[in-house]
Parts: sequence; C-alpha cells; structure tokens
Amino acid sequence: MARDERGVTAQSEDFSSWYNELVAKAQLAERGPVKGTMVIRPYGYRIWELLQAELDQRIKDTGHENAYFPLLIPESYLKREAEHVEGFSPELAVVTHAGGKELEEPLIVRPTSETVIGEMMAKWISSHRDLPLLLNQWANVVRWELRPRLFLRTTEFLWQEGHTAHLDEADAMRETLQMLDVYAEVARDIAGLPVVPGEKTPGERFAGAVRTFSIEGMMRDGKALQAGTSHYLGTNFASAFGIQYLNQGGRQELCHTTSWGMSTRMIGGVIMTHGDDKGLILPPKIAPYQVVIVPIGRGDAADAVRGAVDGLAGQLKAAGIRAHVDDRLHVSPGFKFNEWEMRGVPLRLEIGPRDLASGTGLLARRLGDGGKTAIGLDGAPQTLAAELAAFQSLLFQRAADFRESRTADVNSWPEFAAAVETGWARALHCGQPACEDAIKAETAATPRCVPFDAPAESGPCVRCDMPSAYGKRVLFGRAY
Amino acid sequence: MARDERGVTAQSEDFSSWYNELVAKAQLAERGPVKGTMVIRPYGYRIWELLQAELDQRIKDTGHENAYFPLLIPESYLKREAEHVEGFSPELAVVTHAGGKELEEPLIVRPTSETVIGEMMAKWISSHRDLPLLLNQWANVVRWELRPRLFLRTTEFLWQEGHTAHLDEADAMRETLQMLDVYAEVARDIAGLPVVPGEKTPGERFAGAVRTFSIEGMMRDGKALQAGTSHYLGTNFASAFGIQYLNQGGRQELCHTTSWGMSTRMIGGVIMTHGDDKGLILPPKIAPYQVVIVPIGRGDAADAVRGAVDGLAGQLKAAGIRAHVDDRLHVSPGFKFNEWEMRGVPLRLEIGPRDLASGTGLLARRLGDGGKTAIGLDGAPQTLAAELAAFQSLLFQRAADFRESRTADVNSWPEFAAAVETGWARALHCGQPACEDAIKAETAATPRCVPFDAPAESGPCVRCDMPSAYGKRVLFGRAY
Repeated sequence: MARDERGVTAQSEDFSSWYNELVAKAQLAERGPVKGTMVIRPYGYRIWELLQAELDQRIKDTGHENAYFPLLIPESYLKREAEHVEGFSPELAVVTHAGGKELEEPLIVRPTSETVIGEMMAKWISSHRDLPLLLNQWANVVRWELRPRLFLRTTEFLWQEGHTAHLDEADAMRETLQMLDVYAEVARDIAGLPVVPGEKTPGERFAGAVRTFSIEGMMRDGKALQAGTSHYLGTNFASAFGIQYLNQGGRQELCHTTSWGMSTRMIGGVIMTHGDDKGLILPPKIAPYQVVIVPIGRGDAADAVRGAVDGLAGQLKAAGIRAHVDDRLHVSPGFKFNEWEMRGVPLRLEIGPRDLASGTGLLARRLGDGGKTAIGLDGAPQTLAAELAAFQSLLFQRAADFRESRTADVNSWPEFAAAVETGWARALHCGQPACEDAIKAETAATPRCVPFDAPAESGPCVRCDMPSAYGKRVLFGRAY
Repeated sequence: MARDERGVTAQSEDFSSWYNELVAKAQLAERGPVKGTMVIRPYGYRIWELLQAELDQRIKDTGHENAYFPLLIPESYLKREAEHVEGFSPELAVVTHAGGKELEEPLIVRPTSETVIGEMMAKWISSHRDLPLLLNQWANVVRWELRPRLFLRTTEFLWQEGHTAHLDEADAMRETLQMLDVYAEVARDIAGLPVVPGEKTPGERFAGAVRTFSIEGMMRDGKALQAGTSHYLGTNFASAFGIQYLNQGGRQELCHTTSWGMSTRMIGGVIMTHGDDKGLILPPKIAPYQVVIVPIGRGDAADAVRGAVDGLAGQLKAAGIRAHVDDRLHVSPGFKFNEWEMRGVPLRLEIGPRDLASGTGLLARRLGDGGKTAIGLDGAPQTLAAELAAFQSLLFQRAADFRESRTADVNSWPEFAAAVETGWARALHCGQPACEDAIKAETAATPRCVPFDAPAESGPCVRCDMPSAYGKRVLFGRAY
C-alpha cells in the first residue's frame, strides 16, 4: 500500500464515502464475491470476538444456555405464522436442489430461527416444570439485501438470537426487557454507545411480534442505528408450533415466547459513533490492539530498543493489556503512526534509544489534541491500564454529548423537519400509520422508539394535530 | 420422563442402538426437521464450546487469526479446481432463488471454503512480505448426507477450517504437520482420545489436496473415526485462484496453501471412545458439569443441607470447577444418580444431614467399581481438582489400553480379516487402488492412515503379495 493511498475521505466531507473507504482501509471487512455478502477480515473479526465474549458471558449469567439449530428450514415452517412469512418473504434465499436432485420441498436458508426453534421447543416442553426454557444461539443468517452496506446491511450476517419460552405474559415480558437491558449495558459499557432504549411503534415491529423493543444509537452524521432488538412474541409462535405445557392444575396452556438479537451490525455502529476524519477510534474494551508500541531507531540502537520493547509488550500482555509491537522494517515510524491512527488504536507508545536511556516512552492518545506525554516504563502496565479506562469513559462521554447536542424536543412541524436534518427529534405523535408514512415520505425520518425514560406528556401530534398516543414523546430520526 | 424410559440399550448388545439412544437421552442432540440435519442441545453444545475454547487458543497461539467468509459461494468457483468439484458435487446444496427471483448463477452453500478463501487470498497477497497468511474460521458447512448419523455424518455440521498460504512447499508442509499436531494434542489431552496421526493413502485424500494427514481414533466397537484432517494443497488452489506473490528477486510465484479442519464429529468420537453400558463418560476437561452435587434429605434437614451444598458449589466454582447442584424436588436421589451416570458426569458428591454433621460428602466416580468414598468438605476444592485430573488421565489410559488390545500386526490375509472384525490391523500394503478396493469389498476395512510412528519395514502386500509401498505398515480398520 503506497503512502498516499492511506488517507480516507474526511468524515465531515462525505460521511458515506468515509465509511466505505475506512471499512476497507482499516482492514475490517470487504465485499464477498456474491452481491451483498461480506468477508470479515481478522481485524474486524477480532472486534466481533471481543464483543461476543462480553455478550455471551452476560447471556449465560442471566441463565441462558447456548444451543445450535439447523441452517436450513422447510419452507412450510415459515408459512405457519402469517405475519412472519409476510415480513420475511422478499428476503429469503431458497435451496431447491441438494445431493444432485431437486428437493420435494424447498428449504429456506434461515433469516431468523423462531420457526425451527419453535418446532423443537414444542417437543421439549411438556410441563410447567420445563419452564422457563432459556436458549441462545450464535449463528449466521441470510436476508437478501438490495442495497447492501458492509456491517450495516449484508445478505449474510453473524448474530446471536435468544429464544425463550415462559409460563405467562408477565414472565415473558420480564425476560424481553431484561435482555434489552443486557444489550444496553453491552452497548454502553463495552462499545461506548450511549444508546436509547425504548419500545418500537406498531409499524416498526418485528414480523410476528406483539411488542418490539430496541436500543438506538446516534451516528456522527446524526442518523440512528438500531443496535439490538428484543421481542415479546405473545402466543403467536406458540400457537403456530404447538409450544404448550401442562399447568399445575393439569390444564394445557400455550407458552409465551420471546426472541432477541444483536449482530455484526454493532461493528458498523462502533465505526460510525466514534470515528473521525483521521479514521476509526476503537473503544479499548473491544480494540484488537489497545496499545501499539512503535520502536524507533536504526542500526546498533535498534537491537537494544527491540529487546526492551519486546520485554515491555510481554509485561503488558501479562497485565491483560492487548499490546502489539509494530516491528516492520520496510515502513517508517511516521507511516506506522498514521496507519494505527486510521485503524483506531487507542494508545500508541513510541520508544527510541533516548527514551530507553531515560526509562520512558512517548505516549500518544487517539482522542484529544494529539500531544504526546512521556511516561515511565517501569510503571507502564499500571499507567496504561489507567489510560485505557479513562479513554473508554471519555469516548462514551464524547458520544453522549454529541447525541445530546443533536437531539431536540420539537413542538412544531418546521422544528421537526429542521431537527431531523442533523439529528433526532423528540416529538408528540398521534401513532397513526398514515401519519408515520407521511412524515417518512417528507423527511425520511421514522419513529426510532418510544424511549423508556421520557416523561409523561400529551398534546397535539407534531405533524397532524390529532391527540398524541403513547403518553410521552416519540424519538424520530433518519436511520440506517 | 418416566423412570423406566431412562435406560439405554447396552453398548455390548447393540452398539449402534446404544449410540443413537444415548445421544437422545443424554440430551446431546436430536434430528432436525430437514433430513440429515442436527439440533445440538445445550448439554451437547457446551461440550463443543469447551472443546472450541481449547482448540481456538492453540490456533491463536500458533499465530493464526480468525476471520469470516461468506456461506454462499458462486457455483463457478467450485468448478475452478477439477478434483475439488468432482469430490464435492454429489454433496452440494444449491440456492437457485433469492430475494423473490431466480438467480443468474446458482449459489452453493459452502461444503468447505478453499474456493472463496482462495479468491480473497489472491486479493490480499502481493508480496513475499504478506506471507505466511494464517487464517482460520469457525463456521457451519453443508454436505448432503444420504446416511446421516448425529455428530458423525450430518448434512450441516460445525467446524473450524484453517486456510494458510506460504512461500514454498517446505513452509506449507511445516504448517500442515504443525496443525495435525495441534489436533492430536487436543484429542489426547482434552478429549482423552489416544489418536494415531499419520498420512492418508492417495485414495483417501481430500478432493484437491496433494497430501492429506489425519488423526484416527478407535471407538469401543473397534471401528475407526477420523477426528481431524490437515491438507497440503500444493499450488492447486493457488493456480486456480491466482494466489501469487512477488518474490525477493521480483518474480511472481504461486503460493503453497494448506487447509485443516476439526468438527462437531469429535463429540461423536468422545461418546464412542469413552461410553459404556451405563451411558456417557465425559473427560473432565470438556464435561459441562464436572461434579454434580446431590443434596439428600427431606423436611427440616433439607434446608440446612441445601444451604451447605450451595456454599460448597460456590467454592468449587470459585476454584474453577464446573459444579452443578441437582436440587430438583420431584425426582428421587436414586433417579438423579442414574441420570447423571447416563449423562457421563465424572464425579458425583452426595451430601445428607449425617454427612454434614461429620463435615464430609460421599464421592462417587463414573469410572471404576462404583464404590463411594467419604471426602472432607473443608478441602473439597483441592480433593476434587485432584480427582478430576486423575480421572482425565485414567480415561485416556483406558482408551489407549483398549486400542492396543484391539490392534494387531498381521502378516497374512486370514489374520488381517480376523483383526478388522474387532479392531485394527497393521499390515504391509502394495498401495494399489485396486487392491485397496478389493480389501474394502471383502472386509469393509479401509486404510486409515500410514502412521508416523511405524518403524521402517517392507515385504509382500498382505492381500496380493506385490511389494509393499510407503516403507512401513499401514493401519487398516472399518471406519465411521
């Protein structure tokens, strides 16, 4: 890669080009050979692994067990839940031939697994003692995309999908909200995204759900990204698949089920929430490399520096810090600085012969004014651990401040239209689908969610003056 | 589940029924709705997760990075390597429709990913500095199976597939053998399988490989299971996909590539290597529960026992032991003992009011004579950790002894035919495909591998008297 190829279009100039170029140049992902598919490169996949580990631990800590269900689903299964098949039909990939023959019944490459998991739950559940049944799977799913975008909308993506069955609505709703909470915690504490949790309006519900909840993050172009959803499915899938139990009184009852998912889309959210003109900025908790050490110096001095740098990297790794030594000989230190800045590494430590003599290294942070600070190498593991923790907090705060600065309470249509040009609008809305559609047609904004934490409020709809629904303001924005 | 439904057919009576019943009753896996597919239940999936973690760490420690490549591969890609497409054609699942339309080019659901990864490697590699390129992915693959068997041969299975590109044959062969070594280590030290590593004969090679290596385990019915393979692909895929680099002299060279995989089949190997008439026996290192604690006692005593047992379970977990308290009230202790024996839990600890009073618990081991030993609860974490380590060694040794007792050096055809009735035969062989075919037709035995550790030897072929090939004895057996 020649030096002048490294730069990416400035974020402030063309957000979309910035994103596409950055995903490629930071070596996060590339387009696969089939339209809409994605190759996740090691640097991007490592972010996913780190995010996965955090989410998986919380899924287990809340009592769920991982399992695995088949990729290929009989077409007839999808048709059993009417809204579900209607919602997913346009996006399905269909296997018609296998083992050298045409199949009697076409098979669907799973777009989500409510149906096949519902079929199995029906076999496994017979008594109230079998409930709740708390399952999760890490898997790939396929939804045909006409306008693909790496990480954000790809024909195949990776995710986890939780599927649970419960005695009644109360228990299923408790689960639905608990898992939204888990998503909000991972988004905030791990990915540094100050997401807004809330309920989707009826028009934005998952196909087959009774209630859908989401966490919404604001990207640096002011648009929203839905970063995780949790659904209360009522008895819709239970009645379609016969998921029922004998209650304590000896009567058959339908289970109430839930499903919830978070996907590789989250990586797109991290890129677009934190990145700047220079490129990526990664939250330390999911950065493949938290600290990159660049040894400086040529000739005889190089060997001594190299030895010291390797020793330091070993100490950092032993202290649980993901450190990487960039010891490439065929590129200059300046090239390395630019490259790791573009790839979003939180901290960089430069060490040359003179630093070594004074027992220090020059620390550069990916956030802030770009100034460098000398730090003592003796206490480097402690110093850098503290720097990483501060970096993580600062990144979250920066995103939270940005979101607040781009969100407005609006009470008139002109205010609404202006707000969604650059960010989000909190507005009273009538809740009518036709009015939602009109808003979308005129401004491209959609209701993102009805935030949990909005205060009770009512009044005329911002668009049509009819009485407001939901008892509080709705969050509107353009969305990915 | 009624008490009399729990038993499984004795292994010694009907191995195949024993296996099928056990996989279901131990809640490891079930058949999925589509023929040949598998649902991996939480107990089975946890074994996979534990195995995965061990293997993944070793894959990373040897310098590989995880990535993810698309599930759907253009049909034309598979055709680029002639032997590869010939080998896989009968097993392919084909997507012909997607997004509501017929596709211009059919897509293959990956049976393995040499082709699509080869295509991407060609883009990423340009200079000798880009080599070696060491990639791995954890993924699902689909190969249509006419005679499916849970874990052993399923239409979809989970695996990791490593794909690497190198400067030359020497480096690629070093990698191929290194990864076979990693597989052998995981099989032996983690899964307790005393596998035999060696090279496959030409007729048993992977479609498109120059050399194929495998680890072979012996099941308790004397049959072999190939538990992992590693392939040196030469420049076959490099020339089909244009994977080349500029060498230091400025000339374009083809890369030498490798691939290697280990799958959920391994779980079938664990079941069939260690299980007995009573059911599963799990190696502690991959047992979802290493110790099950069964509280004994009713009424007032139950509360005190329950409190003590929970405290102990907490101590064991803190010491890194996977402990589970079976506190079900609607089944008897005897039912629990039988169930956890059937499900293969290495250690069971029974604690009742009298044990509590004496500060002890009654330890039962899944291997051995079934006698119980009182152990002090104070030192339980240390005692049980030592018991688990001993159990792991004993299980390996038991399998190794079994394998040796069922393997014979044979020098005549009658000896050969007798040996492969109950186990393996080490025999000199001419290496001719027609002779391999004749052996298979007559005895159902195939060459499993040419073991690395066999001493140099030559002489007449055990079947046809022609001069032997390979310079050593070949390992023959019937195989899954």
